[in-house]
Amino acid sequence: MSSSIEIFPITGIGDVVAGDDVADILWEALPPRDLRNGDIVVVTHKIVSKAEGRVTNAGTEAEYRATVEEEAAAIIRRRGDLVITQTKHGFICANAGVDRSNIEGDRIVLLPDRPDRSAAKIKARLETYSGATIAVVISDTFGRAWRRGLTDVAIGVAGMAPIDDLRGTTDMYGRVLEVSEIAVVDEIAAAADLIMGKATGIPAAVIRGFSWEPAKGRATDLVRPPHEDMFR
Amino acid sequence: MSSSIEIFPITGIGDVVAGDDVADILWEALPPRDLRNGDIVVVTHKIVSKAEGRVTNAGTEAEYRATVEEEAAAIIRRRGDLVITQTKHGFICANAGVDRSNIEGDRIVLLPDRPDRSAAKIKARLETYSGATIAVVISDTFGRAWRRGLTDVAIGVAGMAPIDDLRGTTDMYGRVLEVSEIAVVDEIAAAADLIMGKATGIPAAVIRGFSWEPAKGRATDLVRPPHEDMFR
Repeated sequence: MSSSIEIFPITGIGDVVAGDDVADILWEALPPRDLRNGDIVVVTHKIVSKAEGRVTNAGTEAEYRATVEEEAAAIIRRRGDLVITQTKHGFICANAGVDRSNIEGDRIVLLPDRPDRSAAKIKARLETYSGATIAVVISDTFGRAWRRGLTDVAIGVAGMAPIDDLRGTTDMYGRVLEVSEIAVVDEIAAAADLIMGKATGIPAAVIRGFSWEPAKGRATDLVRPPHEDMFR
Repeated sequence: MSSSIEIFPITGIGDVVAGDDVADILWEALPPRDLRNGDIVVVTHKIVSKAEGRVTNAGTEAEYRATVEEEAAAIIRRRGDLVITQTKHGFICANAGVDRSNIEGDRIVLLPDRPDRSAAKIKARLETYSGATIAVVISDTFGRAWRRGLTDVAIGVAGMAPIDDLRGTTDMYGRVLEVSEIAVVDEIAAAADLIMGKATGIPAAVIRGFSWEPAKGRATDLVRPPHEDMFR
């Protein structure tokens, strides 16, 4: 029998400013020494971006729009104020991921420059502090084609493969699995969002009990190559 | 401080055949009387479809392809053997959701006719058995535009709103939230998939500790209306 998975919030994290160390902040906010082998720490990109100084001013709508255009590597669709962009990392999302919520006054938050590297730094430091082997996922909230509403997805990963590749494994009838590549870090980001929420000011969570193998992984591997993508 | 969310698998469910009652099967497989107020039961559509007799034969690739075309309400894109379809429910997914894994021999599994109604029936019966107020989500594994890999999403819902509408709520700085419509049942389906997996033969899970309000809801409300959808 499989055991259960637990998702718990990392609470009590206050304002994060440029120069802060996100791993230090998480470690201090965690219950004492409570990181275990196999834990996955999920952090919303917003505190990572703030710590990395990826914040700028936009007092007007025009300034915000200009920043979005600057941050976008390409415009995929445009309808009125809604701009679906490709970021320089390759992700496709609204407004190049530039965000006006959960930041003070006229400040806006950009995506981290290299979220996979940010995740790796957090992982290394938390592993030093805890002695545990963990994975780190940096999440953001993206819209989707075809389906209303937003879900959290992974934009940065360290320590595990972003896709659980089941190719070659068989189902309960011994048949090779058709559904074979699961975007497991996106499912992890979505699961963590159930406890982080948007209005609660909880920017991080720990997922405990999920079975995964340590591996190198980059969230940018989740980007579908343009020649395979029928919906750009 | 928010408490944690727990996801546990419903194990020991064997083969499901036409005429079976999914709620009875889940109730017998659950630890005794272990459904509580606020629990969300997530069931992969496959056992629902089997119980409802939504199974047919396809011994050859041609027969499989013909069934996909029959089940599809519209073809959105086609590239080689890959067909992106709109189902009659409105969902956009590969192969009209017709599935060849975790079914015996030449049998293939179709989507339930009315998954929201299927979810409502399971909910009503489990609530009668348990005395608890619960929600039920029926999940399937869909691909996405732009991102590699698949994730589980909700195709049927009963007891809760599929979208958590945060419009009008404010962030920690008192600013009205920009990210305002969270597809919470898709995040629930994704979270449950972390423990259900594809190869493990675990077709259901319980999510306990997530905060939600009882409401009417239909998964078909997740379908983005064609006039709003820039990616068909």
